[in-house]
Amino acid sequence: MKKIPNEIIECLNENNSFLILLHQKPDGDAIGSAIALGKGLKELNKSVDYYIEMPIEEKLLFFPEIKCFNQSLKDEYDIIIFLDCSSYEFSFKPEPFPRAKANMVIDHHKSNNCFGDLNFVEITGATAEIVFRIIKKLGVKISEEITDAVFTGISTDTGSFQFSNVTADTHTILSEIYMIKSDFAPLSKRLHSQKNFCQMKMTGAAIHSLEIMTDTPIAIMVLDHDTITSYGGTLNISEDVANIGQNTSGVIITALLKEVKEGEYRVSLRAKAPFDIHKVALKYGGGGHERAAGFSFSGDIDLLKKDLLDVYQTQCDLID
Amino acid sequence: MKKIPNEIIECLNENNSFLILLHQKPDGDAIGSAIALGKGLKELNKSVDYYIEMPIEEKLLFFPEIKCFNQSLKDEYDIIIFLDCSSYEFSFKPEPFPRAKANMVIDHHKSNNCFGDLNFVEITGATAEIVFRIIKKLGVKISEEITDAVFTGISTDTGSFQFSNVTADTHTILSEIYMIKSDFAPLSKRLHSQKNFCQMKMTGAAIHSLEIMTDTPIAIMVLDHDTITSYGGTLNISEDVANIGQNTSGVIITALLKEVKEGEYRVSLRAKAPFDIHKVALKYGGGGHERAAGFSFSGDIDLLKKDLLDVYQTQCDLID
Repeated sequence: MKKIPNEIIECLNENNSFLILLHQKPDGDAIGSAIALGKGLKELNKSVDYYIEMPIEEKLLFFPEIKCFNQSLKDEYDIIIFLDCSSYEFSFKPEPFPRAKANMVIDHHKSNNCFGDLNFVEITGATAEIVFRIIKKLGVKISEEITDAVFTGISTDTGSFQFSNVTADTHTILSEIYMIKSDFAPLSKRLHSQKNFCQMKMTGAAIHSLEIMTDTPIAIMVLDHDTITSYGGTLNISEDVANIGQNTSGVIITALLKEVKEGEYRVSLRAKAPFDIHKVALKYGGGGHERAAGFSFSGDIDLLKKDLLDVYQTQCDLID
Repeated sequence: MKKIPNEIIECLNENNSFLILLHQKPDGDAIGSAIALGKGLKELNKSVDYYIEMPIEEKLLFFPEIKCFNQSLKDEYDIIIFLDCSSYEFSFKPEPFPRAKANMVIDHHKSNNCFGDLNFVEITGATAEIVFRIIKKLGVKISEEITDAVFTGISTDTGSFQFSNVTADTHTILSEIYMIKSDFAPLSKRLHSQKNFCQMKMTGAAIHSLEIMTDTPIAIMVLDHDTITSYGGTLNISEDVANIGQNTSGVIITALLKEVKEGEYRVSLRAKAPFDIHKVALKYGGGGHERAAGFSFSGDIDLLKKDLLDVYQTQCDLID
């Protein structure tokens, strides 16, 4: 655990007006970090504005502080804080960009290139871990809403403490959080298990469509347009639907095809290490990473299956 | 966190032959606790036998120590340890019962009536938390298999740190565990996400059958005999299938009906606080708790639905 730099603490202490920015499509860690830091600064009688892309996932909408999001935007702030933003480009920001004495970056992404005037970047389970340490050092009295916000950030970005980004420090912070509030079971349920009826049915339809390509560890799932429409549209297809294939024993590569319009698919690919499906996405004009990538597709599904098989077999040969 | 009593530590230190017993149908916490304590005692050159009910869930079979289960059984031990057993009756034990200088009970269940000659019962997230503290105090060098066993116990009994039995101490222990081994992501995936193809399809079939009774918060799921048979039988119906209804927004009571033989159902009921479905189970000759109960059933499903509706409405009136 790195020491929080004095210049970060001094800057937050000595200034009075702050604007908090997040990355595009803010997730649980971004929203949790924003609320924990924003509420923390307000406790110290600072003025805080939030400029945040909407909509926010339904499961995160319970925070009272969300009513303060996007309520006012000044031409000038003392400090503009980029929270949980791995790059300037991927941040969601007002146009024209307000003037400020300095931009501060607080983030946990390995790829962060420290684009602020002041930067605190540490590879942790979640940005909310860093925010918790900062507001503790600022002497903020940690309210229940702040503990919920920190918990939300950490719990969502670590997949309920299951991902490889969890460290001993993550659990040390959680231990402190549990000393302030003793039961996070209802919040955990809200963040990880609860689905609305349509999301649940969409999950069922995806499992129903799940097939393993003969003699391969490749799973294919297809949600056709009628199914998607009847369960409320693509917004109801949660992130974990793409993982259904990967969570099936023996599967190494999964493709989830969502028919967004008749004959037009949005494809999500997943692979287990050391396999790399990025190049399949690139071939079809998409992008992503080695283990998770996506693209738009409107051709013959059998050709796509052949490409997945080729990628799998080529890489098997390389591994052997 | 209670202090581990000196008499427990002295008894484990001063004796040499141990038999470890668990409860019937041992779960992740029972198996994890047995392996952590058994391996810990063996590190101190003690002799340890295990008498454990089989089969064990597939996801737990990776521990090398399992090959030592049920390998030998003596007529006499220094100490017989009941681990994670809330009562003598519910423990799985050899017949005739071996002689011993003393029986020791180590457990975390509130209902434990301290039936041993020596007892250490503390309400914690998992028995594995207590075992970890005991073997640390015994000065055992904690191996990777022991950390995996402790993690397995805690992670499974707390639903991946989501249940209300998690405490600050749970996370403090996890923080220590992560200092010994830094990545539990593959183990977490094994314990919480991975399903074989049939279990996955059974989950899909349960979601497909999910219906909400009109104008009520009551969910009904029916797995018919053909479906169960085609996906490998009732052994493949994992615990989380009953939770599908409860994880659907707005649902308060869920009934999962598994048609174990034609026309014969095994019913699992779930309820959210403050609702109590125990009395429905009792009416049909079953048992369980306020929020989770079960029974066998071979009548008209519509009558069962009516009973659920009655219980719900009566309790609504009491709450109002």
